Amino acid sequence: MAEVAPQIRPRRSLKPEVVRWLAARGVEVADLAEIVYKLQVPYNPRLTMRECIESVEAVLDKREVQHAILTGITLDLLADEGALPEPLQQIIASDDPLYGIDEVLALSITNVYGSIGLTSFGYLDKCKEGLLGRLNNGENGFTNTFLDDIVAGLAAAASARIAHKVQES
Amino acid sequence: MAEVAPQIRPRRSLKPEVVRWLAARGVEVADLAEIVYKLQVPYNPRLTMRECIESVEAVLDKREVQHAILTGITLDLLADEGALPEPLQQIIASDDPLYGIDEVLALSITNVYGSIGLTSFGYLDKCKEGLLGRLNNGENGFTNTFLDDIVAGLAAAASARIAHKVQES
Amino acid sequence: MAEVAPQIRPRRSLKPEVVRWLAARGVEVADLAEIVYKLQVPYNPRLTMRECIESVEAVLDKREVQHAILTGITLDLLADEGALPEPLQQIIASDDPLYGIDEVLALSITNVYGSIGLTSFGYLDKCKEGLLGRLNNGENGFTNTFLDDIVAGLAAAASARIAHKVQES
Amino acid sequence: MAEVAPQIRPRRSLKPEVVRWLAARGVEVADLAEIVYKLQVPYNPRLTMRECIESVEAVLDKREVQHAILTGITLDLLADEGALPEPLQQIIASDDPLYGIDEVLALSITNVYGSIGLTSFGYLDKCKEGLLGRLNNGENGFTNTFLDDIVAGLAAAASARIAHKVQES
Repeated sequence: MAEVAPQIRPRRSLKPEVVRWLAARGVEVADLAEIVYKLQVPYNPRLTMRECIESVEAVLDKREVQHAILTGITLDLLADEGALPEPLQQIIASDDPLYGIDEVLALSITNVYGSIGLTSFGYLDKCKEGLLGRLNNGENGFTNTFLDDIVAGLAAAASARIAHKVQES
Repeated sequence: MAEVAPQIRPRRSLKPEVVRWLAARGVEVADLAEIVYKLQVPYNPRLTMRECIESVEAVLDKREVQHAILTGITLDLLADEGALPEPLQQIIASDDPLYGIDEVLALSITNVYGSIGLTSFGYLDKCKEGLLGRLNNGENGFTNTFLDDIVAGLAAAASARIAHKVQES
Repeated sequence: MAEVAPQIRPRRSLKPEVVRWLAARGVEVADLAEIVYKLQVPYNPRLTMRECIESVEAVLDKREVQHAILTGITLDLLADEGALPEPLQQIIASDDPLYGIDEVLALSITNVYGSIGLTSFGYLDKCKEGLLGRLNNGENGFTNTFLDDIVAGLAAAASARIAHKVQES
Repeated sequence: MAEVAPQIRPRRSLKPEVVRWLAARGVEVADLAEIVYKLQVPYNPRLTMRECIESVEAVLDKREVQHAILTGITLDLLADEGALPEPLQQIIASDDPLYGIDEVLALSITNVYGSIGLTSFGYLDKCKEGLLGRLNNGENGFTNTFLDDIVAGLAAAASARIAHKVQES
């Protein structure tokens, strides 16, 4: 019987899956925390890596973030398999610079701690240092059209969370 | 003292001011909770007004929300005083339908609990029932170009928060 | 040949594909124009269906819109084939109400003619009259998790375009 | 005359005012075009300043952009006069780093040519080179809490427009 309404079912957190999916593409929580540390330490010299890890974990707890990550990585993964219908297959596989849906998804991640993360997101996405550069060059062996923007969005949101916390404590 | 960097200063919550500003324009927390209740009770028959009030309070705790409210109400208030430079004075005082900045501010409120609130925001903003209709007609005696969108954004965010909580508990 | 940078290739318009993809899921330009007409005629009694069709066509000319449509319909289509990895397969196939990525994509469509379309988008997405109701009930025989939001976003953008034009002519 | 509905009135373009307001704060169309040129010339070596100026002009033609500029500069200007109510006066006058409404307004400018401008916006807003650095340091003698983000948003939108045009021509 219908006692359990269908929309009530997916109540468990998707975080374990999300963390596993990121790791399978070469992105660990510690990598994300390191980007956050570099962004925030100029404003907050006593910042620790432990606080950055905690902030990344808090961002990954948000359901909106989990949904954006699952959706973006799925599109990267299907592009790798050549399983997307044309012309989308070619657009995503070639990381077409006019395709903005990766930025749109990443913005919904960035926004979970407010709009002050926008600046960090754009900066990371443009400068592509460290892990972001390696993803952009495909060094993990995969299509990363969505993944690099997702990484920038996660780091930007975790940084915004730290900025809010520092000022409010 | 100069040791404290200027940006560290505004660390206290702006919530008391925000609640006072809303009340001064005729919007009480209970009014907002009532809109939330009507939106959410069809999906959640055991919902109580107490939960709706708690959800509105949680939305009002967010700094991004506080900033959007203070900015929007200030613009309404200065329009009432005729204190804005032209052509902005006339645009805001007449609630020009092509002026979308009120929606832009309200969207930043709606987004604090993710994008699932977008639908409720638009619905409330279009249908303008109850308090929203009274604000739209200027029944509080003020310009409400921003305030009606702010009210819709607050109720949409508080509804989204309840939807997330119900599914996750 | 390598002289042509890879990102220069996809320069042709994707509109013919997009129109075909929409039609294959039961959405014709005339259906979209009809929604626009109903939204706008109260503000503009001399509005014609011809103008509404022209406005929908202009929205479909935008590359950002084309990308959002191709991405959303692809996800619906792969959900129909059971070809998405879990847990995303179940989330999209069941139209999980906490999944907001469909709204996020639709918002990027709505925004192409500015934020004044936000209200119409939310209203259409909530009230689900006519075609939107049929899509939401799966009457075309497909998963429409993204498609119904896409339709609401397209109609909202085309309406915003008409509102801007009427005021500016 | 009462036959003309009030919302039909502001049909003329606000561009002349907007250009004058920007110039009064030290921002000329040529300054904006120069930022666009530096952003886009690496991808498009035959780009001319003339094309950049034309692109900035096209962005300034958009009503959503005009509204965002008028609103943001008004808030900067009232902060200079000490005419905003507290606590908003202090927040805007001190360019509080947790105040994200300037980014929210700028995003609505950036978005007029789609989400591909997001990255440029964040990059410009973070690196603050040239004119942006001078605005951020208050070298024009004014509060520029909104103006620096507006400038970054305008340049990002004009760049996105060029990227779309190059690929589509």
